[in-house]
Parts: sequence; structure tokens; C-alpha cells
Amino acid sequence: MKKNDFVLIPLGGTGEIGKNLNLYGYQGQWLIVDFGITFADYTTPGYDIIMPDITYLLERKSDILGIVITHAHEDHVGALPYLWPQLECPIYASKFTLSVIQHKFRDFGIKAKEYLHELRQNDHQKIGNFTLHPVYLTHSIPEPNALVIETEAGKIFHTGDWKIDPSPLVGDPIEVDYLKKIGDQGIDVIVCDSTNAMQEGQTKSEKDVRENLTSLIETYPKNRIVVSCFSSNIARLETIAYAAKKSKRVASLSGRSLWRMYEIAKENGYLKDSQFVPEEKIQDYAPSDIIIGCTGSQGEPRAALSRIADKTHPCIKLEKNDVIIFSSRIIPGNEKPIYALHNKLIALGYNLITHKDNDAIHVSGHPARQDLIDMLHWIRPKAVIPVHGEYCHLLAHSNLAKEQGYGRSVIAENGSVICLNQGDIAIIDKVHAGRWVLDGKQIIPLTNPLIRKRDRIILEGYVVATIVLDQKGKIKGDVQLNAFGIWEYDPDDNDWWGSVQAIHAIMEKFSIKQLKKDQTLINEIEKGLRSYIKNNFGKRSFVEVNIVRI
Amino acid sequence: MKKNDFVLIPLGGTGEIGKNLNLYGYQGQWLIVDFGITFADYTTPGYDIIMPDITYLLERKSDILGIVITHAHEDHVGALPYLWPQLECPIYASKFTLSVIQHKFRDFGIKAKEYLHELRQNDHQKIGNFTLHPVYLTHSIPEPNALVIETEAGKIFHTGDWKIDPSPLVGDPIEVDYLKKIGDQGIDVIVCDSTNAMQEGQTKSEKDVRENLTSLIETYPKNRIVVSCFSSNIARLETIAYAAKKSKRVASLSGRSLWRMYEIAKENGYLKDSQFVPEEKIQDYAPSDIIIGCTGSQGEPRAALSRIADKTHPCIKLEKNDVIIFSSRIIPGNEKPIYALHNKLIALGYNLITHKDNDAIHVSGHPARQDLIDMLHWIRPKAVIPVHGEYCHLLAHSNLAKEQGYGRSVIAENGSVICLNQGDIAIIDKVHAGRWVLDGKQIIPLTNPLIRKRDRIILEGYVVATIVLDQKGKIKGDVQLNAFGIWEYDPDDNDWWGSVQAIHAIMEKFSIKQLKKDQTLINEIEKGLRSYIKNNFGKRSFVEVNIVRI
Repeated sequence: MKKNDFVLIPLGGTGEIGKNLNLYGYQGQWLIVDFGITFADYTTPGYDIIMPDITYLLERKSDILGIVITHAHEDHVGALPYLWPQLECPIYASKFTLSVIQHKFRDFGIKAKEYLHELRQNDHQKIGNFTLHPVYLTHSIPEPNALVIETEAGKIFHTGDWKIDPSPLVGDPIEVDYLKKIGDQGIDVIVCDSTNAMQEGQTKSEKDVRENLTSLIETYPKNRIVVSCFSSNIARLETIAYAAKKSKRVASLSGRSLWRMYEIAKENGYLKDSQFVPEEKIQDYAPSDIIIGCTGSQGEPRAALSRIADKTHPCIKLEKNDVIIFSSRIIPGNEKPIYALHNKLIALGYNLITHKDNDAIHVSGHPARQDLIDMLHWIRPKAVIPVHGEYCHLLAHSNLAKEQGYGRSVIAENGSVICLNQGDIAIIDKVHAGRWVLDGKQIIPLTNPLIRKRDRIILEGYVVATIVLDQKGKIKGDVQLNAFGIWEYDPDDNDWWGSVQAIHAIMEKFSIKQLKKDQTLINEIEKGLRSYIKNNFGKRSFVEVNIVRI
Repeated sequence: MKKNDFVLIPLGGTGEIGKNLNLYGYQGQWLIVDFGITFADYTTPGYDIIMPDITYLLERKSDILGIVITHAHEDHVGALPYLWPQLECPIYASKFTLSVIQHKFRDFGIKAKEYLHELRQNDHQKIGNFTLHPVYLTHSIPEPNALVIETEAGKIFHTGDWKIDPSPLVGDPIEVDYLKKIGDQGIDVIVCDSTNAMQEGQTKSEKDVRENLTSLIETYPKNRIVVSCFSSNIARLETIAYAAKKSKRVASLSGRSLWRMYEIAKENGYLKDSQFVPEEKIQDYAPSDIIIGCTGSQGEPRAALSRIADKTHPCIKLEKNDVIIFSSRIIPGNEKPIYALHNKLIALGYNLITHKDNDAIHVSGHPARQDLIDMLHWIRPKAVIPVHGEYCHLLAHSNLAKEQGYGRSVIAENGSVICLNQGDIAIIDKVHAGRWVLDGKQIIPLTNPLIRKRDRIILEGYVVATIVLDQKGKIKGDVQLNAFGIWEYDPDDNDWWGSVQAIHAIMEKFSIKQLKKDQTLINEIEKGLRSYIKNNFGKRSFVEVNIVRI
């Protein structure tokens, strides 16, 4: 790329849903938009948190002007506590989002107050050679920012996550006229959320949920109501309090992340009229007198809802016919634990209500196809870059734009260098992008060959043999054998003993000369033990042999 | 239970989908119906195959009259090669199902010819004190049997897996009149498939798929067509050959299990008019001249479709705009690998068609709610036992029966002893049921505490330290340290070395007296090493220490 090229390099979130990180570059200066994580799935047993590989950022650390966070969802903000200490650059975000970041930093013992800068709605801020103009949109969390990012080489509208919500209940409704005015000023490129680009129609409003949830709750006047939802959806929390008031109940919350978000919302002036009684008081109320918002809609084993299902929740004891409403969607990959949770709950005699029973108890925070069309016609960009989606979503979004007459579009992937100059977009290069995982305290690339060793060990087992030899090669003391995943199911240790004997048998075959060469012994014993295990246990185990000479 | 109680004990498949095993008992004699496996998911990393715990069967092995297999799907037949050698009892099944079993046994080197008995449609067979009357239904595999099982204490209609298909294409259509006649003779209890008890309406016919698939294929006259489907669906294989003929193409297959099923179908007189050219010839044909049936619809990494997506398939090279049709459903739990496969395929420029684009390219093999209602009205049982489903399916099925006036119903679980006497059903006891997994060559209970050790090791890592000491406690040779999942990411072995030093530091603190006591040393070193690893790597590792005295 040339110095005067205005470029976008997605380092996360393009070709996947999760761990969003977009890097804008111009004249040797870099501005990061979002810094998210993704939660691991079946492909990475043993890991929970995946974050973008930021090698490319670290290599140009001194030229980074800052990180702009569009909103406080984990897939946009979650990597900060893990990786920001390696960058130590300014962070720009709305007041609510900054609160979330401050709470996270406090948990991690990170001191960064002087790096945090508030982005005010509709302000214009000069950051190096970039001008940043945040535009509040609507989403499923307060204060979601779109960003107008301007350089001498072009003007970008970076949507962040958004929906068209005329009644978001918490925060301001979407301002169509303002968006049209931005379009009037001339936008070269829209960089836009693709999550729901395969969903027909329009995404419904948070107000629809409030109305439906309130009337649904009124149909169960005698029973406890438990509503499980995403904790960052402050409007949903307000709806729980609202529905409680309407049905003459009190509201409470259960789950650490819900209380945390409630606290942050209050700090920022939200939820002023919403009261929640402490979790410990829940059982003081008759079933007909309470509504409980709770965590665990994705089947997370330690969240409130799983504890309710396991009857181990310290404060909540439900009774037959109490009502559990899943005011949430199923995040792909979580189907099995969620269905298992559903089954447990109905087996206990609770009334379970999910989106399958009532599709108006949750709405998405992302734009469906008609919403994308509306936005295109308001902004009227010269070119469209779909981000925030798997390949199928990016392709659907790009094709939709073409159908609407916005034919200039590229489908990028993490690491693509997209030249944005005056909307004449093109992928001009490819840089390193990848996935890092949190492993204990360490952060390591998921491509590390030793992770493959680990995957093999999970399947095939691991054995360590240690043999003490004198200088002539005579065995001293007992052969030590430690293993897991191979013969551990043997109550009498016969399998263990058989393997030790196998080592002795191998040792007996060595010549006097061989017995003096450690590496020969190690290679041969490893080979022999591997084949003994393969024959007897059907496993291609990972075998390590130590020789100790005394 | 009393000797003259006619009982049903589900040992698998009740409260879950998979590994069906139903045990019928009467006067001290036992008849097993189905003997299936289930494929493991995220909850059991390292395992592929889960089977019913048959401890209860082994305890009464000499009283087992035989195993009846209703049809040849893995969740009904798959455990035979693993567990039948422990029972060595007669096996009863239809001709096609017996062929599948024989092929499996041949693969495993099991000789069992004299144990295999053919069940002929509508025959009545006396097995001990049971009379068995197989009734062909329709499903998504040839020759699915329902069973009328009769003793002096009652008459059961055990459906197996079924649907109402007037045009199954392979095998005979469902015979409503025959089913009504069975109902006329008086059935006490129906034991019935619940898989689709939450699906409204009627399940469509295999004929609908043929028509839709054939016309869909005709809309892509210039491109290669790849149809991925379940290999046991012989009608779908015939449809591929049929659609090829209609569109003047040749058909081929790719994937071992498809060719295997093709062979078995031919042995049994099916697919007489269906020709498939060998896989190696596929690239000899122009894109417009071929249709390929292939394995891998569930995103299995080594199946044909994944190899096509990875461009490593030895015989199939697709081009842009070639068409891939998923003529299959998503088995819950497989969403992520399937979506990943979809994304890979469309990123290569292929046309992907799934049930989302066209819901008539696959039909279920199980009865939807209207089908269940029809069956109830044909059979008119005194009582209903829903099986073959998770709790939610069993409950929906039971409630549906109640709405239809069949109020006598129990929701059982694996291990429930259900008394069936004359349709006066009740759960009267609970016996041991559980899950066994195949681990290499061993079969072990999933409750084995050592599996929890393994799960912890996957997360937290494993370390083995071996220290050679003379009788006074002086260290001889080098301390040996082997580990995985802890510091393996350290290219310079600094972490390894730090841990060895930590052991030396612990050793230095022991008194002369302590140095003579192996168990004291082991306990203290394990404790110290655990805390060293926790502090430095954030992991609660599984630590094993060996002391070798010389």
C-alpha cells in the first residue's frame, strides 16, 4: 500500500461472527475500531476465549493513534483487558461503553484512566489525520455508535452493530433525517454489519418485545416468572421491571453479569425507574408476586438458569408450573447445551416458553434485509464493504447491495488490505491475521503446533516412562510409568504392569553397545511402547521416555 | 417386579435421541429390541461412540432370548459389533437389516452366522414366551419393522422408527388397512417414536423429494451436481440415479459408506435399475454430464464433501457455479461444522442449496403430529408409551395422545421398569442404565471418575516429575519433568527450567528425616509444584511425582 492510501484492514470479524477488530490506516497512522473476543466452541476443547492475533498491530505500535469502541458487547470490547496492556494507546468510546471498560479494567487491575476518552454523540473529533464523527444508532445495548471516519482520501461510514429501532426504550430512537443528511454530505464507503443479511424483512423493535412480554406474563398470574436474557440488553432489564410493575409484582435479578450491567446502567442514568429487590429476598415473595431476570440463556453451566435446573441455586427455588421465558436467541454452537437445559426444566414441571412457542419474546439487534436496503438509500455510498459476518452473510449482503444498485463491493477476509480512496475500493494486499487463545495466563496462537499435540493427546492418551540406568545400562530402581487416557480404567493396575513388563522386554534385547547410547534407547523404547499400546489398547499414544544415568 | 409382570425397560433412547435399546421381560425371559449407538458431541471430548450401559443385561445373560433389530440405522443397530460378543444371543431382523449386520460383523471379525435369523414381514414367530409379529412400516431406510409383541399378559405394538409414506419409492408403501386390522385385534400398549412430536402437520413422502430434486437439478443444465445425503437412505440413492437419467447425465457416488450401502441394497434386490459409475471416472465426464451422490452432510471432516471443500478429494474437482445440494437435515449439535462447511463451499464459488433455500430437498423419516394422531386412531391402544425422544418430545407426544383421548400414558426414562400388564401401565421400579463410551479398544462407563481426571487435564494440563534419590535423599542424575498443556508454548524451555528449579528449591527445604519418607516427599513436591504452576501459568494442573530410590 502507498502512504497516501486510506485503507481498512479487518483483523477480526470478517468471515466470522465474533472478535471484531477493524484497522483504518492513512499516511502511516492507524486507528483501531473495536477490539473484541469470541467464545470458543467444540473446535478448541480446553479454551474459552479467542481473540484476534494482533501481531500486525504490535509491529506498528508507535503509529497507533487509538482504539475506538463502537459499543460494549464482548465481541467489540472483550479483548481490551487481555491485549490493551501490550498497546497502551488511547481508547475512545461513549460514556456507557467507557463504564463497561472501566469495570473490566478494574477486575484485571489495569490502571488506564488517562487513556479513556469520551466520544460524544455527533461531535467531530480530530485524531491525527483522521476526523471522527460518532453517530448514535440503535442496537441491543445503550449508546451504539456508528462512525464517520474522514481523511483527505475519503469519507467512510462505519456502522458498527445496528438496527432500525424507532422505540429502543432505552436511549434515543434512530434518527433517519440525520442519517440522510450524512448521506447528503457524500459518503464514499459504507462498512456495514452483515449478521442478518440472510433474514428477510425488517427487524422488530424492542417495544414489540415489551408489549408481548408484558401481556404474556399477565397470562400466568399465579406463578413465578423467570425471564432469561442477555445481560447487556438494558432495555430488556427495564422491560422486566416494567412488566413487574404492570402485573403488580416486584422484580429481581439473578446472576453476576446482570447485576453488574444494572450497576453500570444506573451509573449512566439509565433504569432510573426500575427497581430490583436483592437476590436473597426472592424466596420472601409468593410466586404470584415476583418476576426474576436471570442469566444462563445459552445453557452456560454455572449461570443462574443452570443452577435453577440443577436445583443448586442458593436463592431461587421454583415450583411446578412456574414459568421460564427464554427472551433470547440461540447463538449457533450452543444448541446442545440449550436443548439439554430446556429438557431439564420441563422435566421439573416448569412451563418453558422459547422463541419456538412465541417469536415475539426476543428481537435481534441487527439489521435484516429491508433495514440494510433502507440504510443504503439513506447513506448512498459509492461502495459497500460487508463486515461482521461469516462468508455466507458477507456474500448475501454484497449481492443485496448490488441488487439495489450499489455494485461496487468487495468481500474481504481477516487480513485483507482494502484500499478505500474516494470509494474506489479494492483489495490490494494481505497481511497476517489469526486467532489467539487464552490458555491459563498465557495468550498463544491457535496455530501453535503444540496445540495439535494436545488435541492428539486428548484422543489418544499420553504416557511418560522414566528409566534409571547405571553407566553400563543396568536398570536401577523401578521403571516409572505415568499416563492418562490409556489404561486408567484398570482397577487392578494389570495394564500398567503389562506396560512396565513390555519396557523390560525391550531393554533385554539391547546390545551392550546400545545400552550406552541414551538417544538410541529412548527412540527404541518409545517405538516399542507405542506399538505395545496400539496393540493392547487401540491407541496411538504420545509416548515420552526419559533415561536418567547415575 | 413380579414374575408374571410383562415389563418394558428402556435402557437407551428414552429421554434422548440415539442409542435405542428396549428390553421386554416376561416370566424371567428377556427380549431386547434394538441395540444402537449415538455419536458423541462436545460434552465428551475424545470420544466418538456412545452405547448403552448393558450391565443389567449381562447380569441376566442366560435368560436373554435374543435381540430384535427393527431397522439398520446406527442408533438401532450400531452397538452390535461392540457389545454383542458379550451376549452371544440370537439376532432377529429383516433381510436387509441382516445384511448390514453381517457387513459390520465381517469388519470386526465376528463370526455369528448361526445366530442370525430372518424376520419375515407379517410372520408370527414364537420366541420363548413371547410371540413376535413383525409389521413393515415406512421410514428412511428399507424394511423398517414395527413389532407386535404378545405374551399372556398383554399385546404391545412397538413401532420402531416410522413415518406414513404412501410412496416410499424403495420398499412397500404403508398399509393402513393392515394397521387398522391390528388395531381391531386389540392392542394394549403402543410404544412409539417421538422424534417429531413437536412438528405440526404430516411428514412428506420420499416421492416429494424425488420430484423436487429432479426438477431442481434440471434448472442447472450446465453444471456438475453434487447431492449430499445420508447413506442409508436407499430411496435417495435411487432418486440420484433417477434424476441423472431424467437429465441425461450419469450418476456416481463418493464416500465409503455410500458405496457400502449401495452394495447391500443390491444384495437385497434394491436399486436394480440404478447405475453408478466408479468414483475414479467422475472427472472423465463434463460438468453437464454427471450427478454425484456424496457423504459428509454433517460436516464430518474426513467425508467426501469436506474433502471437496478442502480441495483434497482424490477424484472430484469442482468448478465455479457447480451445484451442491444438501439433501439432509442438520443433526442437532452439528450446526457449527455444517455452517463452516457451507461457508467454505460458497467461498469457492459453488452454488449451495440447503433446506433453507428449498425445504423440499429432504424429508424426515419420523411421524409429525398428524401422523401420530392417525396411528393412534388406527391402533387404538389402551395406553401410550412415548420413546425415542428427549424429554420435550416425550412430553409433547404424551400430551398429544391425551388430547386424542388416549390418557393412559407414562413418561419414562432409561432404566424405568414399566409394567405393561393388559395396558394398565405404570412405572414400578428403576434399574441401572447409563452410557458407555468406546475409548480405543476399551469400553468404559462415562461416569468413570478417571474421565473427570481427563477432562480436568484437558483444561488444566498434566505434569510428571521424576526424582532419583539415594537412600539418604540426595538427588542423583537430572530431575525429569514431562508435561503437556502448561508451558509447552515456550520456545526456549525457560518455563520448563523454572519448574525444575522450583523442585530443587522445594527439595532443599526438607529435613534429613523427611528426605527418607517417599510419601511425604511426593505429597510436598506435588503441592509445591501445583502452586508454582498456578502462580506462573494460571493453571490448576494435574501433578504426579515419582521418587526412585537407588
